[in-house]
Amino acid sequence: MFKILDCTLRDGGYYTNWDFDKSLVHTYLNSLNSLPVEYIEVGYRSIPVKDYYGKYFYSPVYELQELKSLTNKKLVIIFNEKDIRVEHVADLLLPIVGIVDMVRIALDPQQLGRALKLAAEIKKYGFEVGFNVMYMSKWKQYGNFVEELSGLDGLADYFYMVDSYGGVFPDDVKQTMDLIRSKTDCKIGFHGHNNLEMALINSLTAVDYGADIVDSTILGMGRGAGNLKTELLLSVLNTKYKMDIDFNAIGNVVDGFDKLLKKYEWGTNVPYMISGSNSLPQKDVMDWYTTRVYSLNSMVRALQNQKNNIKDN
Amino acid sequence: MFKILDCTLRDGGYYTNWDFDKSLVHTYLNSLNSLPVEYIEVGYRSIPVKDYYGKYFYSPVYELQELKSLTNKKLVIIFNEKDIRVEHVADLLLPIVGIVDMVRIALDPQQLGRALKLAAEIKKYGFEVGFNVMYMSKWKQYGNFVEELSGLDGLADYFYMVDSYGGVFPDDVKQTMDLIRSKTDCKIGFHGHNNLEMALINSLTAVDYGADIVDSTILGMGRGAGNLKTELLLSVLNTKYKMDIDFNAIGNVVDGFDKLLKKYEWGTNVPYMISGSNSLPQKDVMDWYTTRVYSLNSMVRALQNQKNNIKDN
Repeated sequence: MFKILDCTLRDGGYYTNWDFDKSLVHTYLNSLNSLPVEYIEVGYRSIPVKDYYGKYFYSPVYELQELKSLTNKKLVIIFNEKDIRVEHVADLLLPIVGIVDMVRIALDPQQLGRALKLAAEIKKYGFEVGFNVMYMSKWKQYGNFVEELSGLDGLADYFYMVDSYGGVFPDDVKQTMDLIRSKTDCKIGFHGHNNLEMALINSLTAVDYGADIVDSTILGMGRGAGNLKTELLLSVLNTKYKMDIDFNAIGNVVDGFDKLLKKYEWGTNVPYMISGSNSLPQKDVMDWYTTRVYSLNSMVRALQNQKNNIKDN
Repeated sequence: MFKILDCTLRDGGYYTNWDFDKSLVHTYLNSLNSLPVEYIEVGYRSIPVKDYYGKYFYSPVYELQELKSLTNKKLVIIFNEKDIRVEHVADLLLPIVGIVDMVRIALDPQQLGRALKLAAEIKKYGFEVGFNVMYMSKWKQYGNFVEELSGLDGLADYFYMVDSYGGVFPDDVKQTMDLIRSKTDCKIGFHGHNNLEMALINSLTAVDYGADIVDSTILGMGRGAGNLKTELLLSVLNTKYKMDIDFNAIGNVVDGFDKLLKKYEWGTNVPYMISGSNSLPQKDVMDWYTTRVYSLNSMVRALQNQKNNIKDN
């Protein structure tokens, strides 16, 4: 059976600036304790930055200790590869040895070489290591990256395909898995975005095709169009895989996050659909859209030109 | 290329009791005029009933005439088979000959025999005829129904699989299409519900496997969890099938219906996911859920017992 990693606080933090009410976090952990989720990713560990970011952007030790006391699940934190270097690792990880089980690395595929060195350093402290490699729909353009995948063997516990644009289809998932397997034996994970409402079928396709782990979040809370919904995945597992599911626990945690959904209104919409189906960054599309200076048509034309490196006319 | 039938007013009417503002209907028709939609299903034609139902439950002749003057698309109305008999057809259809192009029949598969007689009568007036056959996920249980499918040849222009519970997966779509094709040469359509966010992938699977037509609605407006979203389908067609799409038109009509979405909040949620993945009527699940007398767990257990004909304990 494959594993589920719930990353509601980490990915949902893009909406709340990584602050969450204590009582909601307790409801969340308490509910997940009764559900077949293996890992809980609670936030980033980060070096200090100038702008304000909330608690789960730094995941301080006292907080991780409290979370650890409240859950029977494995805890996960994630590094943003672009900000973290080998020399930061000791300070960030030594204090959380024995509290956190896995450290993930979110990376641009073009930085795989640098991430492999970071992973080797993380491994010294005994953590499981996951690679969350972004821009899956563009990997074919990164030749070197694919050749370097053999470096994962013996180092990475999970290698995730991240559908950053929410634009891949089940056949793309299978083709990408074939590509990965031609280079490495690493266990494969999938992190889906829901711009085209493909997160569930892509995740199910990945696990049917042998993936070991998928990410999901409560109500799909996550950047832009959001992620695979944990409650949707579990509802399907209940019938398709005959798995016992505590729907009361699902009801409690969904009710808790529903207030945030009403406030922040994540989920797909026309600009996110356009960005997804064109592999365009959803931030660009939303920025253009919310200013309303351009019509949707001229926006789509300009963004497609940008993607194809054609100057706007 | 396959065809699209937009049935926003007909299926969305479940939320508005089939009343819509005139200005919204004009925005809708005006936008759809610029989009690659072949048919617009505007509502039911019905014999008078005691309770109040709005305009698009009856689709009166003066209204159909006005709509006809505002659109370059083919107009469609639908009959609820359980309420309409052969003797009603003349009254309901004679006045709209030359205005409406297709008449669809929404039916329980166990009434296929009766519906075939109704279709023969409708054909006399020169309309295209579509069969919208409900409960697709349960067809295998209806042996007689499958044997009668050969009666469609030369009579039905489209035979729709309706995923009433929103619970089928792409492989189910293909298997059902194989079953249909073993009995009839009729063109096949798909009407998807979105309980499990499967409406798009199921629709794309159907057309990749040779279906001729799919239904969709603006913002997925429709009973319970709603339908395939027209704007999502068109966004994907723009990239996957290189089809020119007027996104300004999409933006206009989506903005118009967004007010109704905020008010009625259709779309999937945990009860609809449960009903979808268990092939249970979403109305039953929502009724139980909104009363909140039972926990989600006892509700799921009771409904699954009901489905399996086991007495609750």
